[in-house]
Amino acid sequence: MSLNDVKNLTLSLDVMGGDKGPLITIPAAIMAIKSHPHLHLILCGDPQIIIPIAARYGMPAEKLEQHPQLTLYPTTQVVEMDDKPALAMRTKKDSSMRKSLDLVHQGKAQACVSAGNTGALLSMAHFVLKNLPGVERPALISALPTHDKNKHVFMLDLGANVFCDSHVLYQFGVMGSVMAAQVDGIENPRIALLNMGEESMKGSDHIKLAAVELTENSAINYVGFIEGCDIFANKADVIVCDGFVGNVALKTCEGVARLVHKRSKSIFTANVLTSLVGFFFKSSFKKLFKSMNPDQYNGASLIGLRGIVVKSHGNANSAAFLAAIREAMKEVERQVPDKIKATLEQGLSVNEQ
Amino acid sequence: MSLNDVKNLTLSLDVMGGDKGPLITIPAAIMAIKSHPHLHLILCGDPQIIIPIAARYGMPAEKLEQHPQLTLYPTTQVVEMDDKPALAMRTKKDSSMRKSLDLVHQGKAQACVSAGNTGALLSMAHFVLKNLPGVERPALISALPTHDKNKHVFMLDLGANVFCDSHVLYQFGVMGSVMAAQVDGIENPRIALLNMGEESMKGSDHIKLAAVELTENSAINYVGFIEGCDIFANKADVIVCDGFVGNVALKTCEGVARLVHKRSKSIFTANVLTSLVGFFFKSSFKKLFKSMNPDQYNGASLIGLRGIVVKSHGNANSAAFLAAIREAMKEVERQVPDKIKATLEQGLSVNEQ
Repeated sequence: MSLNDVKNLTLSLDVMGGDKGPLITIPAAIMAIKSHPHLHLILCGDPQIIIPIAARYGMPAEKLEQHPQLTLYPTTQVVEMDDKPALAMRTKKDSSMRKSLDLVHQGKAQACVSAGNTGALLSMAHFVLKNLPGVERPALISALPTHDKNKHVFMLDLGANVFCDSHVLYQFGVMGSVMAAQVDGIENPRIALLNMGEESMKGSDHIKLAAVELTENSAINYVGFIEGCDIFANKADVIVCDGFVGNVALKTCEGVARLVHKRSKSIFTANVLTSLVGFFFKSSFKKLFKSMNPDQYNGASLIGLRGIVVKSHGNANSAAFLAAIREAMKEVERQVPDKIKATLEQGLSVNEQ
Repeated sequence: MSLNDVKNLTLSLDVMGGDKGPLITIPAAIMAIKSHPHLHLILCGDPQIIIPIAARYGMPAEKLEQHPQLTLYPTTQVVEMDDKPALAMRTKKDSSMRKSLDLVHQGKAQACVSAGNTGALLSMAHFVLKNLPGVERPALISALPTHDKNKHVFMLDLGANVFCDSHVLYQFGVMGSVMAAQVDGIENPRIALLNMGEESMKGSDHIKLAAVELTENSAINYVGFIEGCDIFANKADVIVCDGFVGNVALKTCEGVARLVHKRSKSIFTANVLTSLVGFFFKSSFKKLFKSMNPDQYNGASLIGLRGIVVKSHGNANSAAFLAAIREAMKEVERQVPDKIKATLEQGLSVNEQ
């Protein structure tokens, strides 16, 4: 089918992005269309690479071409994982990443999913889609596990902005609140600011000022400061911090998970007896460590833009890329950008009273 | 014995500090003198509380009074865990915390150990002991576990300073290098800066400038930027960051450990069979989670001052407080402050060439 015939829920995929590119994005795309009959995917990438890989997953060239849920969008360039964002912006206008964003901007896709170079994706998305009116900075947001197996906590910014002033942190609180309410259906989500302590005198001036701004917006359920040790304690639905701190916290979480994984492996394989007995717990612990790598398994969303962009981990496997596609679908269905816009406008009017 | 007779290695203990105060500090002190015959401890606190607790641990009043390794130093005030640092500074000049620092300043003790209010300890230590010449800011440093069971990594600052400019970060690199070399005996310790990515263009301007300064000091083995996921990967011996980021990273580590602990408990107790089988692994996993809470079990040192101050966790047990006492002994023996002073002076001369 041609691009213009794409209807219903349509996503554009940066098929070439990530460490493994089409090797994981193509099987994920095929799984996605099979389980979601109304989903259309536009595969941006090099057809010469995509076609043989799709064939391996039961989608020969002819079937791919005529498939009502798939459209191949040929691109000639790839943003490499180590490309500098500014250079990629200038020189890779026909990359799979850039084109998948262009399709969202042109209204031909409702959201874009990429596992590519984060810095380049942030720059390109910002340039192509632009911020929502009133939004100073877009942010990377992801869902992290909590002590309660059925609940997670959204955290932002996870690395889109090195430094954020108080008003930017306030806006992240508003955007996070919309995500938790719309995507997770949480009524009156609890918003917290990540800080060095819970006491009001702790932290930098911009964090203290953000706390004042969040308190003043009656549409926001601001619950105060939260410490690193309580990120997973289900004390908040949304945790707000600047991109540097969020990135370090998220990656530290990944680092601890790796460390515990390694150490627990050596506990289970200490001797023949523990190896035999440890076998009982293999799959449970595998699941546990998966949940400890939220970034790698759930992907992160770039919010605050006039369009939906979901970033899958550079090292994602097919299951993780599929999770990112589903996250994008959810955000389209719940119209997250429109809701953010409306809530920010509401916040402004509250502040102006 | 009287205070003036104290010889050899002498430490002053803030016996009243921490959530449990003398209930954990006194048994730790008694264990310490038993295993270290040349150690002298000055117990700063309320004798009416200390004496009956010491008696419970085989140290009746008479023995305590005449013990060649113990000196009771009566104080009338206690810095509470929720006291504001500035107020504690002004109003609690006869507190166990303040007196134990005064003893270091007066040369009557070579180091002080406290499990009390961190903020108050930082303020009082800074006020009483003063910075080493040339040191802009003291920092909290602690040893974290790595993938290699026999190695740890020092990280600073863990919360003494909310924001640090490039030169302060550079000095932390120098101070951390001395700690790793002197306390752990590492030759040419690898120094890294915690950042959002490994690439040179990543992060804030002050981190990039700190990287330049560290590179220029030939006495420092600067190895580049490191990400949160690699904190425990044994890629560096010392990791440098500002106090806000370090505090969040350390506490996130604690939070992840708690989460994994809770989840793994539920794996082991899922049914009768897993409970029986899980019993095999109980003590190994207990050890593992202990090592994941470095802050709680090892304590942190305040470095950059004209004296040694070791901070045990507020929630420390006797074993943790004993570990903090041993850390203080090590730093005294290796003359850490003198070595920091010398290395900073060396750094300055290198930079001035």
